[in-house]
Amino acid sequence: MQLTEADLTAWPRRRRAALVNSLSGFKSANLLGTRSAGGQENLAMISSVFHLGADPALAGMILRPHSVDRHSLEYLLETGVYTLNQVHEGIHAAAHQTSARYPRAVSEFDAVGLTPEYRHGFAAPFVGESRIKLGLRLEESQTLKVNDTVLVIGRIEQILVAEDAWVGEDGYLDIEAAGTVAVSGLDGYHRATRLARLPYAKP
Amino acid sequence: MQLTEADLTAWPRRRRAALVNSLSGFKSANLLGTRSAGGQENLAMISSVFHLGADPALAGMILRPHSVDRHSLEYLLETGVYTLNQVHEGIHAAAHQTSARYPRAVSEFDAVGLTPEYRHGFAAPFVGESRIKLGLRLEESQTLKVNDTVLVIGRIEQILVAEDAWVGEDGYLDIEAAGTVAVSGLDGYHRATRLARLPYAKP
Repeated sequence: MQLTEADLTAWPRRRRAALVNSLSGFKSANLLGTRSAGGQENLAMISSVFHLGADPALAGMILRPHSVDRHSLEYLLETGVYTLNQVHEGIHAAAHQTSARYPRAVSEFDAVGLTPEYRHGFAAPFVGESRIKLGLRLEESQTLKVNDTVLVIGRIEQILVAEDAWVGEDGYLDIEAAGTVAVSGLDGYHRATRLARLPYAKP
Repeated sequence: MQLTEADLTAWPRRRRAALVNSLSGFKSANLLGTRSAGGQENLAMISSVFHLGADPALAGMILRPHSVDRHSLEYLLETGVYTLNQVHEGIHAAAHQTSARYPRAVSEFDAVGLTPEYRHGFAAPFVGESRIKLGLRLEESQTLKVNDTVLVIGRIEQILVAEDAWVGEDGYLDIEAAGTVAVSGLDGYHRATRLARLPYAKP
């Protein structure tokens, strides 16, 4: 099957979105936790978080300012901090439900039944039920001209892992053992089964 | 277990890289195909491709210009086109092997035993063995000040899917049925098992 850019243009909006969201492969599943300066909490399902660098430890993500991401974006720009919390099998349905368009005064934590958790003096809420959680400080944000989405880059200040056993001597964090899920398209959630860990490649 | 940014700084470089690469969750697995103006082919394993938008259809990725990514980056900037080819179970070891530091004159296609394929007049090579392949035109590239990595954004011009059955009426592309793998950390490869497809969320 071959599809060109012109074919896609003729597709209904939602169908095109479903397909194009599948084309990059499996996506990460994280809950973005924020809290406004005035104390309003927000939680948003994000499938666009990506590794950006290890030294310093950085993560990037793409937010859509005209979607349900708008409150999260506003609060993290206001306070300079946010959390990313890996979504596991036990909370994937609640995580997905945060993508509904709730009014500003509603905390998605309450609406979907997840617990805001404040740890180590970090000002943004972690997700109590998540097993691998990061506290990040905003390093850079920019609107991408190509489609007016916002690239947000944060420096990882706090790493909270529920069980020490998941981090190996070599630094490998076993996110599969932690039950972390992967996302496909707009609405597919998947568990993972490891095929292999492969040695550092040499010619 | 709690780790702070300061703890990480004290870790050996490779151990820190292994951990931080796991923190964003599961990563996509794609082979980046390029061909220089002079005809030299290059193939590189990339785990940083992310969905950027559906209309127009865009994909982003992060390249490290001081690593094995340097030839790929040079060729795609030179020609303005590249391919992304989803990695499935049957080719994950070959895909990983492309991350070795081969000399410029060596084509990773030859070195790892994958087949360069030219389709529909597209100037960059697809991977014959891949089941879901994209032809992209460079839209924007920029060096991120935060760590000198390069953000590359491409517009998806060609979509090649090996079996029509993998695309549903609703546009959902079943990348699990296609055998697409997900990556954890620096070296973990995983198959996926779907838990659910969840309906569009409403408050």
